[in-house]
Amino acid sequence: MSAHVRKVEKEKVCVIGSGNWGSAIARIAALNTKKNPDMFVKDVTVYVYEEQVQGRPLSAIINETHENPKYLPGIQLGQNVVAEPDLLKAIEGATALVFVLPHQFLPSVLKAMRGHVSHLTRAVSLIKGVEVEGAKISTFPTVISSVLGIPCSALSGANIANEVAEDKFCESTLGVPPAPMTTPPDEDAQLHAFSESHLWHRLFQTDTFRIRVVQDVEGVCLCGGLKNVIALAAGFSDGLGWGSNSKAAIMRIGLLELKDFCLEFFPSTRASTFLEESCGVADIMTSCLSGRNRLIAELMVKTGKSFRELETENLNGQKLQGPQTAQELHTFLTARGDNVRRPGGYPLLEAVWRICYEGMRPEKLIDGL
Amino acid sequence: MSAHVRKVEKEKVCVIGSGNWGSAIARIAALNTKKNPDMFVKDVTVYVYEEQVQGRPLSAIINETHENPKYLPGIQLGQNVVAEPDLLKAIEGATALVFVLPHQFLPSVLKAMRGHVSHLTRAVSLIKGVEVEGAKISTFPTVISSVLGIPCSALSGANIANEVAEDKFCESTLGVPPAPMTTPPDEDAQLHAFSESHLWHRLFQTDTFRIRVVQDVEGVCLCGGLKNVIALAAGFSDGLGWGSNSKAAIMRIGLLELKDFCLEFFPSTRASTFLEESCGVADIMTSCLSGRNRLIAELMVKTGKSFRELETENLNGQKLQGPQTAQELHTFLTARGDNVRRPGGYPLLEAVWRICYEGMRPEKLIDGL
Repeated sequence: MSAHVRKVEKEKVCVIGSGNWGSAIARIAALNTKKNPDMFVKDVTVYVYEEQVQGRPLSAIINETHENPKYLPGIQLGQNVVAEPDLLKAIEGATALVFVLPHQFLPSVLKAMRGHVSHLTRAVSLIKGVEVEGAKISTFPTVISSVLGIPCSALSGANIANEVAEDKFCESTLGVPPAPMTTPPDEDAQLHAFSESHLWHRLFQTDTFRIRVVQDVEGVCLCGGLKNVIALAAGFSDGLGWGSNSKAAIMRIGLLELKDFCLEFFPSTRASTFLEESCGVADIMTSCLSGRNRLIAELMVKTGKSFRELETENLNGQKLQGPQTAQELHTFLTARGDNVRRPGGYPLLEAVWRICYEGMRPEKLIDGL
Repeated sequence: MSAHVRKVEKEKVCVIGSGNWGSAIARIAALNTKKNPDMFVKDVTVYVYEEQVQGRPLSAIINETHENPKYLPGIQLGQNVVAEPDLLKAIEGATALVFVLPHQFLPSVLKAMRGHVSHLTRAVSLIKGVEVEGAKISTFPTVISSVLGIPCSALSGANIANEVAEDKFCESTLGVPPAPMTTPPDEDAQLHAFSESHLWHRLFQTDTFRIRVVQDVEGVCLCGGLKNVIALAAGFSDGLGWGSNSKAAIMRIGLLELKDFCLEFFPSTRASTFLEESCGVADIMTSCLSGRNRLIAELMVKTGKSFRELETENLNGQKLQGPQTAQELHTFLTARGDNVRRPGGYPLLEAVWRICYEGMRPEKLIDGL
């Protein structure tokens, strides 16, 4: 299981998920496996949840046209992207698993994979969101890692799939597990941590898609998972006609509450992941500038409608992430009760929840800040 | 000179400068002196650089209408704002000086004030920018402090004067000098530092204009002084039609270069001032979302014109701050030469300079990042 052993074998990549972001990242991965034949098997397998598109199976269309017409139309994925609708065939022999599917499908996929994944395999999660059950929040790398018994990293950043697919300049943050602390230092362990960082960095980095590595898997996941609550707050500010000063203040306060929340409940996270990295400050900027959480919040103020009405009218029945996350955080903080250490709690997170679920007037957003 | 002695006397406030920001802050100060009669003399004197407006002296108009029709039209400043065109009369007996004038007028104003300011007086600078001479950068509080021999704080944030004047929610950062380190702790010194923070906080904080205090005068000044270089980079990104991911990446990189630059050359500054405070991350957000530096940079890309042509066409001959600051930083870094410690230097700051002054194509902005 040493880094050396993994290095001599070529890495065989499987992308699990073929939606918008999955297709964009499969294209990036396929560029890099082709460019680094010493390190990677050229073909990148993509597990496709099969569906009929224009009367034909999506996997067949991808394998014939090298394009995903449903989720990433107009973009050539590369001839070495191979779609496979059978999960166990897709992961056969894979040493590098890229999880990029909607989170609600993860439990069934993991269940099916159990026992079919070698301990030499490494995983990285690009899944958005976090898993909340009452007073417990889990990140998806933790879930993947515990079910499959392999290390799992995380990739998240200010990344809109279509912009990445068009090779527009952007950054992303790779969170890798820290090297295990041993005394005296365990050389194998260090090589191993280096190897994870090396593997994913080589698989994802391009001239325009820039990867920075931090040893903070949970911090990388949490910011992307919780940011939409801040995007709602920014949208309320826009809807109220407040200026860019107010909006910048709300973004700043939101960033700090998010950081403090994560540092309080996830001791392994680092403040710098939120304050300095793409997955933190930059992703919050993007989400507060564009994106549908910001938009729906603006419309809530301007029309007086609830987010549920606006979901129905504007999102074809899809659910908005922000209100759901605000509810989960509220449940979590309520369940924790007096154990919340931060003086004053998390007033912005709580105000967003009150506006979404208790009809609080958006003007009151700043009252408790 | 103890804090106690200063506390029993009432603070007499003089605002030096009556432009857009000066008028907005005089209004805030006058609200607070009225509200805190135990601490402040009610009237706030404003030193007005006299000019004729609609055929009458500006100071007379302000004293009659309580409005500054030239620089902040439509806003009532308060009946207790008293305009005074004679500098020495304006500062007579003042214990709290608020410097908020264009930086080019500071030397002559300070020269005239010399010898007329008691050592009990305290100052705060709201002046934008920094003073650069070759390999030397000074902040204005340092200049004020050294000429007048009194401590000087700084106030800066994501603050647009008109939005502050309309009581829209925003935040600002107050940087106060740290309490002098003595062993054993000098109680007077501690009271004194408290007193500075207390004085300015009480003078400026309102329900909608929220002040956070940090012990980092230079950090507060530097971010506001240098941010326009980042706003230019964001404007180039907008002009090129890059998406919000690219822009967020450029803002993030800009914020970090600015922080690293200041930590390298101003050892008293703190990273958190840049990463967590309104004068840092929030002011960079605002400047990259709105403001004329961003706009002119976007137009440079879209029209192919130089910033000088666009200044003439769009700014009535006024000078744009960003290119001038980029030039000053370039001169400074060149003069420092090999002494620049940061690996790779400051590629974004340097790229902005090259685009402005050496005709580098804006597309190349990200090449060295």
